[in-house]
Amino acid sequence: LPELPDTPFHQPAILPRGFHCASRNCGLKRDGPDLSLFVSDVDAAAAAIFTRNQFPGAPILLGRETILAGRLRAIVVNSKVSNVANGEPGLDHARRMAAAAAAEIGTTPDRVLVSSTGVIGIPLPIERIVNGIRGMRAELQNDPLVGAVGMMTTDSHPKVLSVTAGNATISWVAKGAGMVEPNMATMLVYVFTDAALDAPALDAMLRNAAHVSFNMLSIDSDTSTSDTCAILANGLAGDVDHASFQTALTNGCIAMAEILARDGEGATKLLRIHVRNASTESDARGVAKSIVNSPLIKTMAFGADPNVGRILMAIGKCFSARVRPETTAASINGIVVLENGLRTDFDEAALRLSLRGDPVEITVSLGVGDAAATAFGCDLTAGYITENAAYFST
Amino acid sequence: LPELPDTPFHQPAILPRGFHCASRNCGLKRDGPDLSLFVSDVDAAAAAIFTRNQFPGAPILLGRETILAGRLRAIVVNSKVSNVANGEPGLDHARRMAAAAAAEIGTTPDRVLVSSTGVIGIPLPIERIVNGIRGMRAELQNDPLVGAVGMMTTDSHPKVLSVTAGNATISWVAKGAGMVEPNMATMLVYVFTDAALDAPALDAMLRNAAHVSFNMLSIDSDTSTSDTCAILANGLAGDVDHASFQTALTNGCIAMAEILARDGEGATKLLRIHVRNASTESDARGVAKSIVNSPLIKTMAFGADPNVGRILMAIGKCFSARVRPETTAASINGIVVLENGLRTDFDEAALRLSLRGDPVEITVSLGVGDAAATAFGCDLTAGYITENAAYFST
Repeated sequence: LPELPDTPFHQPAILPRGFHCASRNCGLKRDGPDLSLFVSDVDAAAAAIFTRNQFPGAPILLGRETILAGRLRAIVVNSKVSNVANGEPGLDHARRMAAAAAAEIGTTPDRVLVSSTGVIGIPLPIERIVNGIRGMRAELQNDPLVGAVGMMTTDSHPKVLSVTAGNATISWVAKGAGMVEPNMATMLVYVFTDAALDAPALDAMLRNAAHVSFNMLSIDSDTSTSDTCAILANGLAGDVDHASFQTALTNGCIAMAEILARDGEGATKLLRIHVRNASTESDARGVAKSIVNSPLIKTMAFGADPNVGRILMAIGKCFSARVRPETTAASINGIVVLENGLRTDFDEAALRLSLRGDPVEITVSLGVGDAAATAFGCDLTAGYITENAAYFST
Repeated sequence: LPELPDTPFHQPAILPRGFHCASRNCGLKRDGPDLSLFVSDVDAAAAAIFTRNQFPGAPILLGRETILAGRLRAIVVNSKVSNVANGEPGLDHARRMAAAAAAEIGTTPDRVLVSSTGVIGIPLPIERIVNGIRGMRAELQNDPLVGAVGMMTTDSHPKVLSVTAGNATISWVAKGAGMVEPNMATMLVYVFTDAALDAPALDAMLRNAAHVSFNMLSIDSDTSTSDTCAILANGLAGDVDHASFQTALTNGCIAMAEILARDGEGATKLLRIHVRNASTESDARGVAKSIVNSPLIKTMAFGADPNVGRILMAIGKCFSARVRPETTAASINGIVVLENGLRTDFDEAALRLSLRGDPVEITVSLGVGDAAATAFGCDLTAGYITENAAYFST
């Protein structure tokens, strides 16, 4: 777990009161669960943010309508097939998924958020999914890991997290390991809380949190057609202090972004890129993203090879950012490697040793202002190539 | 050699009349030439474009001054160390390289263009270079391969090309295999011609040619601090028809961009991405670059895995481009895989077979206008990781 001060993570993670989940294999994957259902005992206030990709999947199109009401009872999600680029039949399939889940738990389809994740452009096996949903109500239980497992694609482990915020609990269930540079949301991240908050407050808080977490995460610079980040608040724990809730929500989203980054396809370590003293926040974010996405930085982190000039290259290719070589400094894991735009006389053996560890933390100071940002990513290894050269076929 | 109609490439490549080159090992690399000199018998009109990276190397800073006069006699270039991020001593070293070459061939330092390519941020071994230049004049000869070899870093082979334009010859000598998304020039590309053209004409023609060739090339999305593309015209062949010269220059630059792309670090094949029927040229270029840079497209090409939905993802993540799913179509090597934003019922076995070949050519039609662009790149393989995880140390 990441070390975030003042944020007491539950170990193991739990679901907040009134939330339950189940998962099943409905025949999409050869082995293991491929269908998950998350249910609140009562209607929950809800907010969600979705991918900005211009080819959004059918579940995104439906989800944008559904979330307008600001109320959800359930989320149903399948893995293996993403239901993207399937036209009108795809939208019909997403609606049938919502209807099947609604019938199973006794609500209306407009209270169900639908997600699908996996290969793009092949038809959703809707009959298997509808059949699979039948009877899941009886299997609902309290362990978030059960729901997380059914959402996994190339994830090496299910991703859950939970934290206390006053009387309330906040829990995250997520998936995502490739095609992750969210730009509005992440792959699939569901946040459940028993705090009492209305939909507009949730929406604002979720956007604040995503701005510094999932929207600063990039595993491979590719933005998915299915990114969804939703929050459900069923109110069973009553009112909470908004400021502390926001802090806990933001810290948890950062922690989950780091969990996703560290499990990037083929990754062996987390990269944290801090940019300080930038002219504007947009410059800080752009430079941090440029560094975290640079294949030459990512392979340097993997190889533990102190080729620190690549940091200058990755800063310098941000053509529109305000950059002055003579005020640019950088450190890697606390070892100062660049000062005044020049390589320092650092201890190469010490840096090499430090780069072998996890995480690799690069801090850049642009020396031209006081804006800052942090980006999250991972190293680039042969494992990424292997996974993605034959993903469709496996 | 690429198949470009109406452009008769010389086989083997030659230098135009009045140009000569030599290369040597001066002690920067363990083996093989690491220092090259290119000389024209007489002063040549010249133009050059340089990297837009905000941490330009010392040779770039000096080159921008030198090229203002529009006249060059020689180019001197070393490989292995790039002379970037070395501050005032770096600039002094670049000036000493120019002076040494000028003394050797009997001209003034302001007629010599300097390049250095290799690791960023370590001091240039200037004494070895200055000693190495001494006596090179006696070794000048006519084979461009000799000069190309001394410029190589991770290149798997020296890169030369020559073509006829009326009475004149145009010849390219280039290097570049990683840290290549030029954005103003490419790694190092020197173009020599015996045509009689003045510096402003050369400058305009070089920019036209680079716009559709090197500026549409991306091996790994990383923009070098040392990119340089220069053209020298010594006039020994007399006047040429400007339009035919521009065509030959552009075609040769495209051919050289493809040679560089195909030799990308770890690459096994060339990617050619054509975008047609875009709303604006900027949209067409942006979408083509997005596809050619997508690690998921690059690994698909490597794995010959027909995961065609990734094309939609890479188009759709161009948030500012005008894209309509219902008019979007795409083909891979002539096989139509997407129509109206939907996957077609293509012959998967045929596509798989075709993807195993080289090049992989993806054509996208956005169906919203008549602008077009083509980008050049390569697949992403474990070889890229291996080369870049330990480049500094090898």
